[in-house]
Amino acid sequence: MKLSNRAKEIQASPIRKLMPFANKAKEQGTNIYHLNIGQPDIETPEEMRNVYKKYEDKILAYGPSQGLEVYRKNLVRYYNRHNINLDINDIIVTTAGSEALVFALLVACNPGDEVIVPEPFYTNYNGFANMTGVKIVPLTTYAEDGFNLPSNEKIEALINDKTAAIMMCNPGNPTGTVFPKSEIQRIADIAIENDLYVISDEVYREFVYDGTTHTSILEIEGLEDKAIMVDSISKRYSACGARIGCIISRNKDLMSATLKFAQARLCPPTIDQLAANACIDIEEEYFVKIIAEYDKRRNIVFEELQKIDGIICKKPKGAFYIIAKLPIKDAERFATWMLTDFRIDNETVMFAPAEGFYATEGLGKNEVRLAYILNEEKLGKAMKIFRAGLEEYIEKVEK
Amino acid sequence: MKLSNRAKEIQASPIRKLMPFANKAKEQGTNIYHLNIGQPDIETPEEMRNVYKKYEDKILAYGPSQGLEVYRKNLVRYYNRHNINLDINDIIVTTAGSEALVFALLVACNPGDEVIVPEPFYTNYNGFANMTGVKIVPLTTYAEDGFNLPSNEKIEALINDKTAAIMMCNPGNPTGTVFPKSEIQRIADIAIENDLYVISDEVYREFVYDGTTHTSILEIEGLEDKAIMVDSISKRYSACGARIGCIISRNKDLMSATLKFAQARLCPPTIDQLAANACIDIEEEYFVKIIAEYDKRRNIVFEELQKIDGIICKKPKGAFYIIAKLPIKDAERFATWMLTDFRIDNETVMFAPAEGFYATEGLGKNEVRLAYILNEEKLGKAMKIFRAGLEEYIEKVEK
Repeated sequence: MKLSNRAKEIQASPIRKLMPFANKAKEQGTNIYHLNIGQPDIETPEEMRNVYKKYEDKILAYGPSQGLEVYRKNLVRYYNRHNINLDINDIIVTTAGSEALVFALLVACNPGDEVIVPEPFYTNYNGFANMTGVKIVPLTTYAEDGFNLPSNEKIEALINDKTAAIMMCNPGNPTGTVFPKSEIQRIADIAIENDLYVISDEVYREFVYDGTTHTSILEIEGLEDKAIMVDSISKRYSACGARIGCIISRNKDLMSATLKFAQARLCPPTIDQLAANACIDIEEEYFVKIIAEYDKRRNIVFEELQKIDGIICKKPKGAFYIIAKLPIKDAERFATWMLTDFRIDNETVMFAPAEGFYATEGLGKNEVRLAYILNEEKLGKAMKIFRAGLEEYIEKVEK
Repeated sequence: MKLSNRAKEIQASPIRKLMPFANKAKEQGTNIYHLNIGQPDIETPEEMRNVYKKYEDKILAYGPSQGLEVYRKNLVRYYNRHNINLDINDIIVTTAGSEALVFALLVACNPGDEVIVPEPFYTNYNGFANMTGVKIVPLTTYAEDGFNLPSNEKIEALINDKTAAIMMCNPGNPTGTVFPKSEIQRIADIAIENDLYVISDEVYREFVYDGTTHTSILEIEGLEDKAIMVDSISKRYSACGARIGCIISRNKDLMSATLKFAQARLCPPTIDQLAANACIDIEEEYFVKIIAEYDKRRNIVFEELQKIDGIICKKPKGAFYIIAKLPIKDAERFATWMLTDFRIDNETVMFAPAEGFYATEGLGKNEVRLAYILNEEKLGKAMKIFRAGLEEYIEKVEK
């Protein structure tokens, strides 16, 4: 039986290729430090976990397609604290950020339309683009520039009649780059000039360091009909398994169309929404601690990377990822070799070759993404192994 | 800002049109018996609810994209009890049946492809077709025939180069019709002859009455590469808010492509999967009781409908819906009038005009769908009000 073209074309997870090697290493009793995935090791807040424990309804019923009203009302309060004033109808709760991204592409783009995305970008954008028949047009950014945005000329050169939107992740996965307000404004101005939507994936909004301020696309004036924000509680509350996110826009027609897509799938998970709802007021004490923890980890990773001769890596200001350009030819080969050949005290490190985060053929081949989602002690060990492995790999394999 | 064409075209929920009238009636203090939705009033099994209460993990983490292994293993056992022998890799857990249907259309159909669907059909199929760029080609079935399938000639007349699949719901929502094995075999033969997928939505598999046996598409021999089954626990365990379903096929390439779509959205909700998993072994005692309860309700609704002069309605053998062709011209007008004008002891009934379940223009205008999801007492009252309302409506409004 013939599969659809999109089924044939959808990209396999670039991390997955390495899984057989990781599994084999584990079977041999090797301990692997996982810096390859964005699953935080931080505890989910007790307030949230308690909701599951205290659930008393006898019937686990459908919720409204737009999400539970109590949760949406509280989300209005949450965003208000972040300088974003919303009406409850600007928010539709989704099954995690993934569904919000699919909805955004469905309402903003026709099949065949183009969306400009700064690369390297979150690989699953490829999957969502495939599902919705949208073409991602990469806007290349560089390790040398800290993955900041290129000039207006470079961006505008990619715009044509088929361009429907600019989509960005801020703070960035996989780059950790945080676009300052002036850059968000620059994107907004280009969007206004060219009548494009701006889809902003802000699931890491809280994770900014060095006193950096996060600017949401929803804070930009004059962009009310063009700004679509995608959010998720997965990283915010270390609750990746709850699958709760949302899509937000002040464009009433767009939200009314989004609601119809939401109605087709009935509703997001009910108890998980209640659990997410319990987190609305735990901001202060929780985040100060968490951010300090991630900041410490960021410093460990960055400082260890700086010891590598010929590395290109600016210190990222957000999220919990860092991309490093290494003095090697083939980062996938290096990542594989670490799993198959390199051990210190029977331990090794797994990380993501960055090539899969680029849409432009040939880019990212000598880059890796490290997720700093382990505690200080483990991360310290992992980075020592990473550096020692890299030295030996350069010496023994690539020379 | 321009919305996408699919955003402009996606059908609004046909039930929603009536909601403002229902809300107004409620504001006026009127009690409404809801026969318009498929939200069962049956309690979610305690085994399932207890899982939430006993959840002890400190980190609510991502599960695997294909679903938790423990749950998939148990699903293999569950289906085995239903004469369906599966390998664990034939199953991918989804965020409810909705996501499974979207995945099925994504892998089986190219945008622009056609899928033949017996009408009347579950309206959200329109939404999923819109999202995936697939065209639904309705295969009309009739109240007079109990919504059974028409002849091979009628079905084959709809097949052309663009036809990729036949999609059916068995037992049927909104019809309650259960296709016997011979009919499933007939569809399978047509699919084999014409190289089509068969997507079978079997979320009501347990809900069959009068000693009827449900035949799954997965039980048909020789259809291994073409059969795609969609399932959900929403109705089975009265757990609509858990959002757990699955997609099943023995076509390895198809499942491997489906997994890539599943990886793009990371995973279905974690705790809800564990809750679903707790239900695997509660089959016997639970279902005998539930089926008997729904059967009683079915009889109440059917017997009351039979008292209506000129009604056309065969007794359905499955699910918990019944479609009745009424001796009126405009069922939507009748449904609206019941909410705005008709009361008995300040109570009225809400139900779904069936026109929205048809893709063929003009069909279903004098039909309604009733969901028998209220207890005996309430349902008895609701049906008396329905019948009295219909008589008065015919007398006062349509005459």
